[in-house]
Amino acid sequence: MNTPATHDRQPIPGIKDTLAVASGKGGVGKSTLCANLAVALAAQGLKVGLLDADIYGPNIPGMLSLEGRPEMNQASGRIEPLSAHGLKTISMGLLLDPGTPVIWRGPMLAKMIHQFLFNVDWGELDFLLLDLPPGTGDVQITLTQLAPLTGALIVTTPSAIALEDVRRGVEMFRQTEVPIVGLVENMSYFSCIGCGHAEAIFGSGGGEATARRLKIPFLGQIPLDPLIRSQADEGMPIVRTHPEAESSQALLQLAEGLGTHFQPT
Amino acid sequence: MNTPATHDRQPIPGIKDTLAVASGKGGVGKSTLCANLAVALAAQGLKVGLLDADIYGPNIPGMLSLEGRPEMNQASGRIEPLSAHGLKTISMGLLLDPGTPVIWRGPMLAKMIHQFLFNVDWGELDFLLLDLPPGTGDVQITLTQLAPLTGALIVTTPSAIALEDVRRGVEMFRQTEVPIVGLVENMSYFSCIGCGHAEAIFGSGGGEATARRLKIPFLGQIPLDPLIRSQADEGMPIVRTHPEAESSQALLQLAEGLGTHFQPT
Repeated sequence: MNTPATHDRQPIPGIKDTLAVASGKGGVGKSTLCANLAVALAAQGLKVGLLDADIYGPNIPGMLSLEGRPEMNQASGRIEPLSAHGLKTISMGLLLDPGTPVIWRGPMLAKMIHQFLFNVDWGELDFLLLDLPPGTGDVQITLTQLAPLTGALIVTTPSAIALEDVRRGVEMFRQTEVPIVGLVENMSYFSCIGCGHAEAIFGSGGGEATARRLKIPFLGQIPLDPLIRSQADEGMPIVRTHPEAESSQALLQLAEGLGTHFQPT
Repeated sequence: MNTPATHDRQPIPGIKDTLAVASGKGGVGKSTLCANLAVALAAQGLKVGLLDADIYGPNIPGMLSLEGRPEMNQASGRIEPLSAHGLKTISMGLLLDPGTPVIWRGPMLAKMIHQFLFNVDWGELDFLLLDLPPGTGDVQITLTQLAPLTGALIVTTPSAIALEDVRRGVEMFRQTEVPIVGLVENMSYFSCIGCGHAEAIFGSGGGEATARRLKIPFLGQIPLDPLIRSQADEGMPIVRTHPEAESSQALLQLAEGLGTHFQPT
């Protein structure tokens, strides 16, 4: 895919596609989805990196059971990402003791994102996935200015309030000429373990309707599955531990679609 | 309550208590809880203001059906907050067309927060509630430096990942000497409409255990109630429309506790 020609954007040598996984709003399950997607893409045989761009709330290390500090390669002066589940990963969470807050203003944030993009020894990658924080602030501005984003995947829940924030996020990517791959609706429905009753706790149909209205592809629904959450809490992506689960199947299908979209065989 | 003596903090004339409602992580239902809490406090006969400090994702106007632009009072040069449900409210969402993203770096954010604190005609208030965005960045830094915060209420879900971010948030308030009122666990359990089975979708018991570990008061659980969400989506706080609901009762009880904590009779 072509990178939009935007002044300060620099290619990252060795990386084919750089995909932002974004949501207007926090707490829509974006990091969990992003971690599972990265693992699923790697399981397709693709070379995948995952950059946790949420500096204040870096949840990726916990979700992938990553431990240890990334080391500086003395020869190259670059940071070595950590490997797990077939991925290379970097996150602010790997550079801090647990529970330590990053009380930083925006310029420091921007510097760290620059480091993560250009000073990490990513090597050859088919995909670099970026797990973005919520909002349209410093991290997003820095990324859209500097990173050669070949696409943005938008994650939402069906709630009207999350969808309101989606509009803002989509508009930001349009203004900064990042192609939008599509919208995924997460936490779409919950199936009761007791009786099988499916309840649309966060509302119903909003993702698809919003995708249509914003003229972006709708990429499907992921159910609200307590197992996705408990597996993420335990540091094991559900697509590896329970690939047969309905939620895993939805995630694997999404990964397959993305793989084909970006890397047609 | 005493305001911690921190250099640049200025009192806001006429405002007794300024309470930050915060969560490490986004999407834990903080804004919904904050809006309902503000309405419940106002229903106790208290004079309440609500400052939506989430500049990138201002969801408060939608939750309270606020419409119209706040006007500038020509005589005082101050912004008039909008009134609804017995509250005075200001939000970035009132100053923008729907769906318009605020693509701002941190310094602009800090300026807007300063305006909202000191250049809005709040009048006499018992409580100013601040709905904080997720993270520990520019808005939080600006608020803890400038605003005379008399307390911070922490909202979380029971998921391990949300709780990890809670630790960071609590640590930030401690470092900046803001007293922590306590921790509320939101989305604690979901009761199936089909069979009554209660499912702890986001995990169970984590809020109370974390409060104990961090040595802060645990203020109770709010169930995951589709009605809270649908009422918020429709712009009607559940504590007004369905005060009898289990979730409303939990919210009203929380408001009562806060009212007594800050304004003992």
